[in-house]
Amino acid sequence: MTVSDQTWMAIALDEAEKGRGLVEPNPVVGAVIVKDGREVGRGHHARFGGPHAEVAALAVAGQEARGATLFVTLEPCCHHGKTPPCTDAILEAGIAKVVVSARDPFPRVNGGGLDRLRAAGVTVELGLLGDRAARQNAPFFKRVYTGHPYVIAKWAMTLDGKVAAATGDSRWISGEASRAEVHRVRGRMDAILVGIGTALADDPQLTVRPPGPRTPLRVILDGEARIPVESRLVSTSRSVPVLVAVTGRAAADRCRALTDAGCEVLSLPSESSRIPVVPLLSKLGERGMTNILVEGGGRILGAFLDAGQIDEVDAFLAPMLEGGDHASTAIRGRGVLRMPDSTRLEGVSYSQVGPDLRVRGWLDQPWRARLKDLVQSPGDDRS
Amino acid sequence: MTVSDQTWMAIALDEAEKGRGLVEPNPVVGAVIVKDGREVGRGHHARFGGPHAEVAALAVAGQEARGATLFVTLEPCCHHGKTPPCTDAILEAGIAKVVVSARDPFPRVNGGGLDRLRAAGVTVELGLLGDRAARQNAPFFKRVYTGHPYVIAKWAMTLDGKVAAATGDSRWISGEASRAEVHRVRGRMDAILVGIGTALADDPQLTVRPPGPRTPLRVILDGEARIPVESRLVSTSRSVPVLVAVTGRAAADRCRALTDAGCEVLSLPSESSRIPVVPLLSKLGERGMTNILVEGGGRILGAFLDAGQIDEVDAFLAPMLEGGDHASTAIRGRGVLRMPDSTRLEGVSYSQVGPDLRVRGWLDQPWRARLKDLVQSPGDDRS
Repeated sequence: MTVSDQTWMAIALDEAEKGRGLVEPNPVVGAVIVKDGREVGRGHHARFGGPHAEVAALAVAGQEARGATLFVTLEPCCHHGKTPPCTDAILEAGIAKVVVSARDPFPRVNGGGLDRLRAAGVTVELGLLGDRAARQNAPFFKRVYTGHPYVIAKWAMTLDGKVAAATGDSRWISGEASRAEVHRVRGRMDAILVGIGTALADDPQLTVRPPGPRTPLRVILDGEARIPVESRLVSTSRSVPVLVAVTGRAAADRCRALTDAGCEVLSLPSESSRIPVVPLLSKLGERGMTNILVEGGGRILGAFLDAGQIDEVDAFLAPMLEGGDHASTAIRGRGVLRMPDSTRLEGVSYSQVGPDLRVRGWLDQPWRARLKDLVQSPGDDRS
Repeated sequence: MTVSDQTWMAIALDEAEKGRGLVEPNPVVGAVIVKDGREVGRGHHARFGGPHAEVAALAVAGQEARGATLFVTLEPCCHHGKTPPCTDAILEAGIAKVVVSARDPFPRVNGGGLDRLRAAGVTVELGLLGDRAARQNAPFFKRVYTGHPYVIAKWAMTLDGKVAAATGDSRWISGEASRAEVHRVRGRMDAILVGIGTALADDPQLTVRPPGPRTPLRVILDGEARIPVESRLVSTSRSVPVLVAVTGRAAADRCRALTDAGCEVLSLPSESSRIPVVPLLSKLGERGMTNILVEGGGRILGAFLDAGQIDEVDAFLAPMLEGGDHASTAIRGRGVLRMPDSTRLEGVSYSQVGPDLRVRGWLDQPWRARLKDLVQSPGDDRS
């Protein structure tokens, strides 16, 4: 049986996933080395600052790498970062051919790795399963392109479209299996965001149980610094960090009380008590954040949708009916006036989680248009 | 290969479905006759007033029926209705054994058919795939038990829980494939119901395109008789019947105008301008209706949910985001105050229809408790 190049790259893409939550703000990367139709090495980027996937795979392959083909999900680096250039390691090992799924748009790489390999006489191919690779590292790519983290909007909703009862009660819409899945997602995030409405109504912990590969910063969008010092969020802020985003409308003594309690307070300029979405994302991006999960409520998700800043949706639908005239829908804000102006999700996938249905998909934000450059020959955007 | 009794009954249940929309207010029924492990006859109840499934299958089997086993989804009748008793036909044909999925609770049958066969020396078994048979004819059973038609609630919703935009615009949430599926459902209904809000906002036709096996009555819940004579519903009422349900608050001249235009006007006693749900269902049941489809809007579906009168849900979820603070959720009305008081659906099934997701399930209404009697030995409720 001959294994196709596509299959080898699919193995490399799966291998890359092992680094999810561990390597950010780096991209996840996987590599497979194949000689005479047989795998001789495999590896992934396993932790931030640790060896890159290519180097990990080369270490397994040893002398077998000579004359072999390297399948790697992202362009090998050609610069000295936390580790030496992968291109050097590839050339030293005597790899004859490198198949790359997507180019690395990081300014110090951005096609330079491919050029270096080609210049040294290595055969280089770009774009195999490129769409999958572009999707796999969409959060990394977005951050390189925009400086902002990738925003995943998450909610749980009844079949009649409610995210809470009339009293604000939202426990529990989704079942145990769905909630466990949410904790798994949280453990791979840099931050979890909620609005002050949700913080007051639910007094949530927003921790990851059981812990995942990373501990997300807990962020409260709280323009007037209303979150009580006694809340579960604030009172646990010395063990798991909490950032309270406020505006100029927050009283100085409220902010000081939160700081004294162990929270970080970040003040953002705003004309109202609403937290401005884009400046907030800039701040989180500056801190090196790649993935953030916005868990609501509806007003916060509405603000993100109105600002064009939701990149992906991860929604859980519970097969129950609540009824009632209150407006606790998943996404509020301004919204659209006409149905055709609604935002259609792309790449929608449905899966059953316990009794619930999980719906995922992404929004076609402007930065995504640049992803197609990553799977074509380099040069286009390196002027 | 030996075919199991279960498989024969499953074939009979599938066969029964061919009568859906054609036989009501009768139940759908299918029958298979098996001799020496081989099918010798198959049939279904194909139209109201036409031969029953057993008779259709016996006609195919002819002499082969002697000593054979009859699998039938519902208890054979033992009374003279529109056709002679099926039990007589079964005995004349010399059937040796009858396997029945569910008992027929219709007062003139209700175990009597099984008794008659047993008394004549035929081996009788009850309950094979009984749950499926009970579900298959749930609308018929409900009508026998309560006098009311079976109520299916239908809506289409965005992934953020909206059934319309802020302006009331709801075209189109679901995709073409979903809308075609709704027309297929409509063509098997006795009536389609909408509230005056939906009638005014959408000016819908509520016809079946292309036509199905039956032409549903179009019912508008319109307490004050506000539907304009120029509306598409009223102006087409001479070709496809329209019933306008009103209350004492409807002005006599408005009602007369609607009658003159070709509509039927049904006045129901009410303390407000709201149509009372249970009396309306009684009226529709008296007309021999078995299945009705309530297509909204949210206020009407809320009234049905509050009254405990939704039997089944058929919801379409479109992977799009609308946003907005308006309360156009699928089911309004009073609703529940606490999330645990929400109504969980049973027998939930998910399926993809074009880009949309279809969610179906039933509500555990009190009358359903009696279905379990139908698959156990008779006698329990024949006092």
